[in-house]
Amino acid sequence: MRILGIDPGYATVGFGIVDYQGMYFKTVEYGAILTEAHTDFPGRLCQIYEDMNEILRRYEPQALAIEKLYFNTNKTTGIMVAEARGVILLACAQRGVPVYEYTPSQVKIAVAGYGKAVKQQVMEMTKRILHLDAVPRPDDAADALALAICHGHSAPPDY
Amino acid sequence: MRILGIDPGYATVGFGIVDYQGMYFKTVEYGAILTEAHTDFPGRLCQIYEDMNEILRRYEPQALAIEKLYFNTNKTTGIMVAEARGVILLACAQRGVPVYEYTPSQVKIAVAGYGKAVKQQVMEMTKRILHLDAVPRPDDAADALALAICHGHSAPPDY
Repeated sequence: MRILGIDPGYATVGFGIVDYQGMYFKTVEYGAILTEAHTDFPGRLCQIYEDMNEILRRYEPQALAIEKLYFNTNKTTGIMVAEARGVILLACAQRGVPVYEYTPSQVKIAVAGYGKAVKQQVMEMTKRILHLDAVPRPDDAADALALAICHGHSAPPDY
Repeated sequence: MRILGIDPGYATVGFGIVDYQGMYFKTVEYGAILTEAHTDFPGRLCQIYEDMNEILRRYEPQALAIEKLYFNTNKTTGIMVAEARGVILLACAQRGVPVYEYTPSQVKIAVAGYGKAVKQQVMEMTKRILHLDAVPRPDDAADALALAICHGHSAPPDY
C-alpha cells in the first residue's frame, strides 16, 4: 500500500510518501510544498492545489494520512491552515484518494510507542523505521512521514 | 461592476450576484450551494468546488466579497467552514477573480448604516437596496447579497 502523509500548512506543506508491505516501510519520496510570503493568500492556495495534483499524479498514493486540526491560541493562522487543508482534501477527493485523519497523539503512539513522546523522539523513530541515514528535513516532511507510518500501523493487515 | 457575494459554509454556501453601476444595484441571481450530510466531507468539498466553478463560469463576476472568518465556541464546525472557504478562494483565484473580505460589522454598516444592526434589519435593507419583493431565502443567500452590497459601497467610485 502506498501512503501519502501530509502535514498541512499554507507557507509549508510537508509531504511524505511510503510503501507499506508486509510490516515493512519503504520511503518513496518526501519534501515540502513551499509558498512565497509575497504571493497573495488565494494565490498560495492555487500553488498548493497544483503541487498537490503533481504529487498525486506522479506517485499515485492509495491513501492520504493527514493531521487532524485543532486550534491553538493563534486563530488567524489556524484559519489559514484550515483553508489550505481544505484545498489538500479537495485535490485528494477529486482523484478518489481516501482521507484518514490522525491526531498528534495517535502519531506519537504509532511511531514512538508513547502518546507524549517529544518531537525529537518521534523524528528519530521515523528515521529508524524508514531506514534513513538522517532525520528527514524540513521538520514538516518528517511530520508527514510520521503520519504515513501512523496510517500504515493503523490500517488492517489485509488493507 | 459585477460582484459575487459568498456566505461560506460546508453544508450551505450562500451566493448572491449583483451588478453595481452608478450607485445602483441590480440583482442578477442568488441562492445556495447545498451539500448532502451523508456525503463524506472531502466529497462535499468537491461539490462546492464544482458548483463554484459553475457559478463563476456562468456569471463571470469581477470581484468576490466573502465573509471574514472568526472562530466561535464550536471549533470543529469552524475548521470545516474554513476548509470549505479555502476551496471557494481557490476556485476564484484560479479564474483571476480578486477576493475581498468583510467582517459582519462592516457588512452591517454598509447595508443598514449601523454596525450592531440586528439580522432582520440587515435583511430588510438588503431587500430594499436590491428592489426585491421579499427578503431573499435562504438566509445564507441574503447574507451573500449583503456582502456583495458591502463591496459595492466600499469600492472606489471608478472601480
